[in-house]
Formats: sequence, C-alpha cells, structure tokens
Amino acid sequence: MKLEELIAAARGEVEVDLLIEGADVVNTLSGEVYRSNVAIYDGTVVGFDCESAKKTLDLSGKVLAPGFIDGHVHLESAMVTVPEYARAVVPRGTTAVVADPHEIANVLGVEGIRYILDSSRSSPLSVFVMLPSCVPATSLETSGASLDAPALSKLIGEERVLGIAEVMNYPGVVFRDPSVMAKLGLAERTRFDGHRPRIDGHCPLLSGRDLAAYVAAGIGSDHECTSSEEAKEKLRLGMRIMIREGTAAKNLDDLLPLVNEVNSRRFLFVSDDRHPSDILREGHIDSMVRRAVRAGLDPVVAIQIATQNAAEYFGLLDLGAIAPGRRADIVVLDDLEGLSVQKVLKGGAVVAEAGRLTVPQREAPMPRSSSMKVGEIGPESFDIKAEGDLVRAIGVIPNQIITRSLFTRPKVEAGKVVADIERDLLLMAVVERHKGTGNVGLGLVNGFGLVRGAIATSVAHDSHNIASVGTNSAEIYRAVSAVKEMGGGLVVVDGGEVTAPLPLPIAGLLSDRSMEEVVEKIEEVVGAAKNLGSSLEDPFMTLSFLCLPVIPELKLTDRGLVDVNRFDFVSLFAGDGEEDATSPEER
Amino acid sequence: MKLEELIAAARGEVEVDLLIEGADVVNTLSGEVYRSNVAIYDGTVVGFDCESAKKTLDLSGKVLAPGFIDGHVHLESAMVTVPEYARAVVPRGTTAVVADPHEIANVLGVEGIRYILDSSRSSPLSVFVMLPSCVPATSLETSGASLDAPALSKLIGEERVLGIAEVMNYPGVVFRDPSVMAKLGLAERTRFDGHRPRIDGHCPLLSGRDLAAYVAAGIGSDHECTSSEEAKEKLRLGMRIMIREGTAAKNLDDLLPLVNEVNSRRFLFVSDDRHPSDILREGHIDSMVRRAVRAGLDPVVAIQIATQNAAEYFGLLDLGAIAPGRRADIVVLDDLEGLSVQKVLKGGAVVAEAGRLTVPQREAPMPRSSSMKVGEIGPESFDIKAEGDLVRAIGVIPNQIITRSLFTRPKVEAGKVVADIERDLLLMAVVERHKGTGNVGLGLVNGFGLVRGAIATSVAHDSHNIASVGTNSAEIYRAVSAVKEMGGGLVVVDGGEVTAPLPLPIAGLLSDRSMEEVVEKIEEVVGAAKNLGSSLEDPFMTLSFLCLPVIPELKLTDRGLVDVNRFDFVSLFAGDGEEDATSPEER
Repeated sequence: MKLEELIAAARGEVEVDLLIEGADVVNTLSGEVYRSNVAIYDGTVVGFDCESAKKTLDLSGKVLAPGFIDGHVHLESAMVTVPEYARAVVPRGTTAVVADPHEIANVLGVEGIRYILDSSRSSPLSVFVMLPSCVPATSLETSGASLDAPALSKLIGEERVLGIAEVMNYPGVVFRDPSVMAKLGLAERTRFDGHRPRIDGHCPLLSGRDLAAYVAAGIGSDHECTSSEEAKEKLRLGMRIMIREGTAAKNLDDLLPLVNEVNSRRFLFVSDDRHPSDILREGHIDSMVRRAVRAGLDPVVAIQIATQNAAEYFGLLDLGAIAPGRRADIVVLDDLEGLSVQKVLKGGAVVAEAGRLTVPQREAPMPRSSSMKVGEIGPESFDIKAEGDLVRAIGVIPNQIITRSLFTRPKVEAGKVVADIERDLLLMAVVERHKGTGNVGLGLVNGFGLVRGAIATSVAHDSHNIASVGTNSAEIYRAVSAVKEMGGGLVVVDGGEVTAPLPLPIAGLLSDRSMEEVVEKIEEVVGAAKNLGSSLEDPFMTLSFLCLPVIPELKLTDRGLVDVNRFDFVSLFAGDGEEDATSPEER
Repeated sequence: MKLEELIAAARGEVEVDLLIEGADVVNTLSGEVYRSNVAIYDGTVVGFDCESAKKTLDLSGKVLAPGFIDGHVHLESAMVTVPEYARAVVPRGTTAVVADPHEIANVLGVEGIRYILDSSRSSPLSVFVMLPSCVPATSLETSGASLDAPALSKLIGEERVLGIAEVMNYPGVVFRDPSVMAKLGLAERTRFDGHRPRIDGHCPLLSGRDLAAYVAAGIGSDHECTSSEEAKEKLRLGMRIMIREGTAAKNLDDLLPLVNEVNSRRFLFVSDDRHPSDILREGHIDSMVRRAVRAGLDPVVAIQIATQNAAEYFGLLDLGAIAPGRRADIVVLDDLEGLSVQKVLKGGAVVAEAGRLTVPQREAPMPRSSSMKVGEIGPESFDIKAEGDLVRAIGVIPNQIITRSLFTRPKVEAGKVVADIERDLLLMAVVERHKGTGNVGLGLVNGFGLVRGAIATSVAHDSHNIASVGTNSAEIYRAVSAVKEMGGGLVVVDGGEVTAPLPLPIAGLLSDRSMEEVVEKIEEVVGAAKNLGSSLEDPFMTLSFLCLPVIPELKLTDRGLVDVNRFDFVSLFAGDGEEDATSPEER
C-alpha cells in the first residue's frame, strides 16, 4: 500500500528513487531558503536525506522552488489542446493550473468540461477545474449548452473539480437570481462546518455594500482588481486577490504595491486569458514571479504567491511546497535574482529542460460531438432587406471591447442594404452553430476598415457562434461556410477564395496543432485580414467581442442586435426620433 | 432561505440585527487595525455599515478581534461539563475549541465522543471534535472502549468532526502498525485531490527521517515542541506548530522566538491540558495572546495566531475573521496593549461581559451509561500474599510523570505484604471499572508519604480505572468503594471514613458542578491527602499518572505491574538476581 511504502521510504528502509543534491531549497512553509538535499520516492518528496537512492541529481548552485500554480486560467485562450498547453507552460515552471473551462462549456456543455478533465488526466501539468457558473452567459444568444445547478451538481464531487468558477453574474448574486443561488448552493454541500468547495469571484469595481453582499454569499476570490485601492477593499473583506497578467488585462504593476508581510498570504498569481504568442514570448507564472521580484518583492514571498498560497486557498494539501508527503513538483531556477527556469520535475521526474518538454505525452482524446451544427443557410441568408431610412450600426472602438451604438442612413441597392466601403459601414452576421436553428443575426458595423472580402470566426464570446464581417453577403457566406467546413476556426476570404484558414476543429475553439504553429497561423490570418484593409491590431479579436452582449453598448448575437444598456433586443432599423432618444451620436 | 437573506442584509435591503459603532477592528485577513463599524445579521457579519439596525452598540475606544480558537484541548482536564467549561472560557474570549475527547472516549467510547458533541450543540462555545486515535492507549490495561478505524469511520463525516486527533502512537506510524494505518486511512477519504480531513500529531522530540516519515503520513500539526530548534525542524517539514500553554507543559516562552513575519501563519495557540484552577486564575487563549504580546510579538500577529490561523488549518472558513459571511464571534478588548477581554459576542449576541457569561445555557444531556462497572471485590481483594523476599516498587519522582523501578524487601505480617510507613512503602491498587472483570492490579509505591488512611481516584490515565494508594488494604477498599458509590471521583479516607469526596459522576472524569466548586473541592481533597502526610504537590495527579503504561519506568494497571521499558508485565515478586539485571537502585 502506498502510504506504508512512503513512510518506509522516508525512514530510509527502502531505496528512494531520486536524491537531489547541492541545491538551495525555497521553503514556502517556513519562509526560508537553505541548502538541502531532497529525497523523492514514488513521485513524492519523502525527506531531505536518504540511505541510498536509485539516482542522484547534482543541482549544485541551483535553487529549488515548488512547481508554480496558475490559480485561474481559461485554457481556451491559448487555442491549443491541453497537451500542447502543457508543452508550453510546464518548461516555464507551471506544474498545476486551476482552469475555468468557460468557453468550451458554452459550446459543448458537460462534455466540454469532461474533455478538459480527460485530456489532462496523465498530463505533466496538473489541471484542476472550477465549474463554469455562467453557461449560457445570457438569454440573448443561443449557446451550445445550458449548465444549471443540477447539471453542475453531477460534477461537483469529481476528482480534480475544486468548486464553482468565477461568478461573473454578480448582479445575479447581489439580486439573488434563483438560478445563481442554486449554483452557489452547490458549494454549501459541506463536509465539515464551514468547510466547502471554493467559489471564485469576478466583480470588477464592485464596492461597498454590494461587494459585502457578494462576499457574504461565500465567494472567496477576485481576479478583476485593477487598482490597489480596489484590491485593498476586497482584501479587507476576505477575498483572496488573484493578481492577473493576461494578454489584454495586466494588473501586476498596479496591485504589487499592496502586498506586504502581513497580507501576502492572501495573494495568488493568475493568467486568466493569455494568448499563445504571449505565452511563447513572455512565459507564464514564471514571468510574473520575475517581474514581481524586479519590482522589489522578496523572492521567497513571490514564490509563496506563485505556489503555496494557491495550494492553501484551493485546499491542495499536497502541492505548493517541497516537504514530506507533497508531490515532487519542483522548479529548478538558476538563482533568486535571475529566476530563470532551468529544469522542471513533475512527480519526481524531470519533464522539462532548457525550455523544452522532455517527456512524450499521451495523445489526448477528442470531444465526440461535432460543434458545427449549422442550419440551412445560403447566400441569401445574409441579405438585409431595406426596411427604413435609418439603421443602427455597431461602432468599433479600437483596442476596447465596448462599442458605440450609432445611427446612420444605410446604402441601399436593389432593395437591399449593402456595405458602404466609403463610409466604412460593413455587413456583419452571427450564425448559430450549436443547434442547427438556422438563426442568423444581421447588422452593420463601422470601424473595421475592410475594403474587400470578408472574415469569419467561430471564437466569438461567450456563445461562440460563427461571427463574420465583410464587404458583401456573398463573401460573408463563403467565409461562414469555410468556418463550418473546417469544423471551426478563423478564415479570411478575398475575391471569393479562402486565403488564410486557421482550423480550430476542437469545439471551434482549439487547434489540434502545436502552439508555435497556431501562433504562426494567427499571424497569417491577421495579416490577411489587414491586407483586406483593416487597420485594427487584431480584427479577429475585435470581431469575437462584437458578439458579447454583456459589454455595452451595441452588440450582435445570432438572435439579433442587442442594446446592452437595456439588456434587450433592438431592431436594425430605427424608428423616427429613436436616434435622438437613445444616442447623441450619428455619422 | 438563509443565503438570500444574508445577501439582502449585506446590501442594506433589510434591517440588520446589530451595528457595532466606534471600535477599531483587528482585520486578521489584511493584517490591519482600523476604525470600522460592523453590521451583523442573523449571527453573521454582513458588512461595515448599514441602512438601519434594530440595535446599535457603541464600543468607542474599544478593539474588536475575532473570537479566539483553541486549536487542541482535552476538555476533560478541566473536570467540568461543556456548559461549565464554556462559562469559564467564553468570557475570556474563546469562542471555539477543537477538542480531542481522548479521556472520555477511553471510558465511554463512541458514546463519550457523542456526549461531547451533544452537550455542546447549542453552547456559546463552538466545540469541534478530532476523533481520538489511541483508544485504548495500550494493550496492557483494560479500557472502557476500543475505537478501531471502523468505529471511527462512523463519526468521521459528522458535523463538527474535523479529523483524527493527535496520533500519539508515533511508533505505530513510523513502523506502520496496521491498526494505526487504518485510522490514517480514514482521512484519505478525500473529496478533492489532496483535500482531506486533518490529522493532528503528537511527536515529542521526533526528528530526522522518522519525523519526515511521520509528516509524510499526512500528519499536519504538532503541539509537543519544547524548544525552538525542535519546532523549527517541524515547521520546515510542513507541520503547523501548536504553541501550548497547559498546566504541566508550558512552551510559549521557548517557541515564541521562532515566530516571524514569513512563518507566523503556521502557528496556532492551544491549551492541551489546562486545569480548572489555572483557567480561573490565568485565563485561556487570551492569556497566551497577552503573554505573547508582552514578550514582543505584534498584537495583530498574536491575534492571527489565536484566530485565523486555526480557522485556516482546520478549514473553518466561517471563523477567524471579522468579515462578511463569517460568524459574528467577536471579542471586545480594552486596547492592543492591555488585551483584556471586556465583552464577547457569539453569533452576534453579547454572551459575556466583565468576565461573566450573561446568557443562560441549555442543560446538557448526561451520558446514559454508568461508567462504574466494578466486579465483585472485598477487603481481601487488596491483600498481597507474601510470595518472596524481594519486591518491585514504583518510585515516585516529585513533579514528574516518569517513575523509577525499585527493588526492596517487603514488610510481611501474617503471610501478607503490608505497608511499611517507616520506609514510605505503601500499598497501591488499580481496580478495573469498565467491564466488571474484577481485575485488581496490586503493587507497592514509594514516595507518597501517607502515614495513615488512603486516597483513590477514577481519573487515572489513560484507561481511567480506579487507582488507590493507602496505608492498609481495608482503607484502600473503603476508598475504592467510595469512588464506585459516587459513580466516580476523588476521595480521601481517614480512620475508615471518607473525609473529602469530589464526585465526578460523568464518566468518572467530570463533575456536574461549577468550575469554581470543583476548584474548591480539589483544594479540599488535596488538602485532606496532605493531611494524611503526603508532601506531594498534588497526590491525586501523581496517582493518576502511576497507571500510565507508556511513560517509564514502572507502572501499575488493572492487569498488573508494567515494566514500561520492556512494554510488558512483570511480577511484583522479583526472582533472585533480577534486581541487579534490571536496575541499579534499591532502598
């Protein structure tokens, strides 16, 4: 039996598997750094010396830290499978992540969550899962699944499932939406008094009594703080502060000044949404540790934040420290100044060296379900019959996910509204892809800058229907059809031809290729989209957020145009006087 | 529903029950002290202001801290019921204890544990329970119960049961005794990876590989450290260090120098065994906080150690801090220098003021089982037939629980060994009281100093049979009979008459009277015993440890004399040459 063996190995009665010699150990429990050997048996640290070892590993001059833990990540943002993600982040020192499979769950529901669990089962990266709390994100769109409390309850007790993921619907908490309350109630299934699964938060700028209400509901963390003042209030109320450095949202510099010796235990490092190119270029949790130390944080505290603090919050008692009985997930650093990852041990075995994964990975299973159930559509599905003199148009604001709601006169040809290249007024469509409803939402968008062709993507928050923007309905149809035929992905259509496809066959969100290849492909499709005339930094990312009906002002879903401020649908054609009543702006 | 109400109260939609105004709050989460109101609804902190409150409480100039938590206590050492214990410690700021009902479980088994749980169900003191891991303590005595892993497994998931109590049998861990391993295995019933019930440790002076083995087995704490060096090694290995200030064992002064800003989160305060007179005179966890601060510890850190750290270790997420969603268990202190407890709120209600409990307590149930099942005994049961010229005698060492094994010539009259007052060689007996076996262990003891009469007690570690020491078998019989007739307790017999009884009718361990009365009675019985000629500080405490067969050198149980070094029985009459072979000492 395992425990007996472990004890015997710790006592030196049986030969240990590995003895690491000569390195300094960062002890995240005692807060010290000191020279110590480390003995490992059956994947577990058993002590600091031994009678005899099958192997020894001389790491003289190096520093050993526990494996880094990402406390909150949407793996889907990296657009690759779990094995590919592991191949990228494990050599950078990350040995565990707490994933919120929010995106894939919006497409595939429970099957998507199980896919993340299954495809990480024997990974060199430990993947823990928080159950997505907001599937679907709203009632204004068609998602691939609906995960209510009874559906989540089947997963809550499973291995590696740690609780309920970020409760983005904070109005639902504060105003006690019954479906939200039922989800919070899942975490109340307590084994001990007060001892329950974790519930992560997401409450940007929430403050005062509403924040107190949100915390009183049992929500234990927040990763949306953008200022030290905001984080301080949340800290005082008892939330763990997850310092986030994603691709779009970067909060380390703003939050670090708040960390001190009496409160540092309440902080974690998280990546949330980090795009593949950033992971390859900057790194992962390791880059946060380095930046924090360069900004003046004690390296031991920075490493505690990256390891033990997350282990403690999530109750992962066997992670976060190099100590007897804990998993031998160990990062070998050059020193406490450089903090550069030299090697990574996972369960006592070297799995990465010099930035590369050195172990083969088991091929991960693929989801069984097709995620491309598009109803009957044809080129005519994208025609907008002219029904008035005034239309609403989505106004893109570069590098922001909010939009403006514009009113304008449409260009009409043969009774149809058409794109007006002169005024950068393009056609936009969102095609439902989960249930074959045939829903096509149609609208107009300003600010994309395409002068010919069309682009389309199946990555479109939060329901991930197929979104397209183009200069004519024929090429939009071509682009949407190409996405459908690839089983999901990003395409550019120019002159009726697909010029730069990035297939994302897994749920229309993830590639089955390497992260390097994905980065290259993204550069290609973005380049091709820019070739069509767009001056946006990443037209696909902009497009993916034009569907998100929780961020103001005007968005488009498969069910139609949404006035986010009213949280309801509005018609494309505006009535007399409406423009004055709702918006001061018009082109 | 509760959670909805709480959220509404936090938002100010409903009137809160209480608003505390004007005090400074010790925030154990952010590590700060600042002026803040505290709003309480339905026993729970909901925030820091409110629209309107049913009551307000002006505590201007005072300091609010979370209720203190005793991380490890044997309530039986206080010799009173849970309500009486609560009456003593709650006014001193303790609002929760983690109890190991080791003593009562050795008498009553599962019923004893349930008694502790039942009698604390609606107490102003939250009583959590760790399941005793060592019942019986040894195979060399008859205990009232035997709690193996299957027996404990029925309790492990119950409300307020947090895990497995101090695993005193550390050789059993290190050498993988199957029954010990089975008990450790109970805590492996994990809900999440690595997330499991706590197992407390007890491993005085264990070090090096054996300590690593003990920690690798999953044992998370130790309260037996007597030096900073010992604690440092355990801290490095990942144990939480419980700093103990009991009646006999006091470790605060020795361990405090180890506490610093990077490791303080790993310490707890515990009382372990604190006698009623010490509780009344010195206090409880409050006295440890005061002493730590006077010794130079930051008051906020001292309060974290007394509150949040225990809550965190035991996973008591709703205790340990004054924050939304946490129980409103609040200690009102004069200031951070005096640290004197002025008032105590439990679940938002004032339950103690000026050192007194101000709320009535529900009468606690009594155990149903009699704990006095003594077999047929008579005066002749205590006769020792002379069967040799050389006897073993237990040598008392004042103020220690270890004894010496002596050899001497017995005084013999009419074929019986009798007490020899001149040489302070008295008769000792241990009468089995759990199963009516009629077992009577007989021996001789030197060092008690009685010149007449006898004393007897049903508090006799760890099996709590009836132990007696006296100058003649008739008075020993009288004393044992008196204990039996009282249903347990302490007595002194002088001239054939009981002069000072302290009845302990609950399991023969606990009084049904007030702590003050118990203290007074103890003084009486100890005084009466001293009147018989004993110069020991507390002859009853000395007697109670003469039965404990895990502490060297010679002990007496109901089954006979035990040579602890050999961990086996030895005969009262020694063979030729045995004295030389086993001990250099003889009187």
